[in-house]
Amino acid sequence: MSSDSPDTQSLDTLVQALRVLPGVGVKSAARMAFHLLQHDRDGARKLAAALTDAVSHIRHCRSCHTFTEHELCHTCADPSRDRTRLCVVETPADQAVMERTGAYDGQYFVLLGRLSPLDRIGLDDLGIRPLLERACDGVVQEVIVATSFTAEGEATAHILTESLRRRGLTVTRLARGVPVGSELEFVDLGTIAHALADRR
Amino acid sequence: MSSDSPDTQSLDTLVQALRVLPGVGVKSAARMAFHLLQHDRDGARKLAAALTDAVSHIRHCRSCHTFTEHELCHTCADPSRDRTRLCVVETPADQAVMERTGAYDGQYFVLLGRLSPLDRIGLDDLGIRPLLERACDGVVQEVIVATSFTAEGEATAHILTESLRRRGLTVTRLARGVPVGSELEFVDLGTIAHALADRR
Repeated sequence: MSSDSPDTQSLDTLVQALRVLPGVGVKSAARMAFHLLQHDRDGARKLAAALTDAVSHIRHCRSCHTFTEHELCHTCADPSRDRTRLCVVETPADQAVMERTGAYDGQYFVLLGRLSPLDRIGLDDLGIRPLLERACDGVVQEVIVATSFTAEGEATAHILTESLRRRGLTVTRLARGVPVGSELEFVDLGTIAHALADRR
Repeated sequence: MSSDSPDTQSLDTLVQALRVLPGVGVKSAARMAFHLLQHDRDGARKLAAALTDAVSHIRHCRSCHTFTEHELCHTCADPSRDRTRLCVVETPADQAVMERTGAYDGQYFVLLGRLSPLDRIGLDDLGIRPLLERACDGVVQEVIVATSFTAEGEATAHILTESLRRRGLTVTRLARGVPVGSELEFVDLGTIAHALADRR
């Protein structure tokens, strides 16, 4: 929005500033600004404080690259984890899901993204180099690639697998197959084809 | 996202805080937080400053209810505007569009929204009462309802028209019809039906 008026400078600045959010264009930004000013000024104040706080406190874990407020995140700092296996995930949320399964006690590396040419996220934006350094520490024996099973996640997995195998590491990928609890009739064909090929 | 970890408190707080934005659920909020922390910390700092600045400086124009940094917005403060006509628009952006036509020199009232039950925006959230006071100042003779031609905009227009007519004011609505420059073949049927009914 552009009200072209001299007395809404801070509104125009807010609309521009909101556009740093991914997927937010000028129309959504104006809608967000109007909503905050009209209905939720307290929320806007809290958001400003949360942004300032996060930007000044959150950094990357030295070992797994995830977001943390400390030098090492709590998973990497845990001495009981198996250090011979490294699971590569896209986001801290994915890592949390893996943890909740209770089926994995190795370490993690969090890419914080996946290849996404449309969002201008290329190889250098992902933590590929830190991952290679981390995986080649001499202790890690197997790297489990747990990126998403989307086009971008698969492309990321492919590139990672190539680079890691070239360095002599065992690289595995989460199995593709029919989800637990689903009826075959409603599962998409690509998934069934993969489940058939990987039958055991 | 919930990383369930004790060392990302400020990240969790940021994700929660981002959810005050309209249309942003927990997944988009996490995506936004990751993006800002990973790719645009400077943008996050600027957004925090813009939010704080807007919340403390922007208020409502005493006369037309739009956002302004002063007691009266620059349109209401302009003594050359025709004070017998009042145009009701939804947003400052709509007002700017009306101004750019150069075809209107009356005053405005900015609703800052329209009825939207899904977003929990009812009659009381719109500035209906201030509008009724403004329109019944004894100087205004005609109210031009220029809300959107969507279902919500039409519902808003209907309610406004009822209330204003009951107070003895002339109420008009922007004409519906075929847009300038369009070929009849590609205009939707509802629009053509309206243009036919309102032919002149």
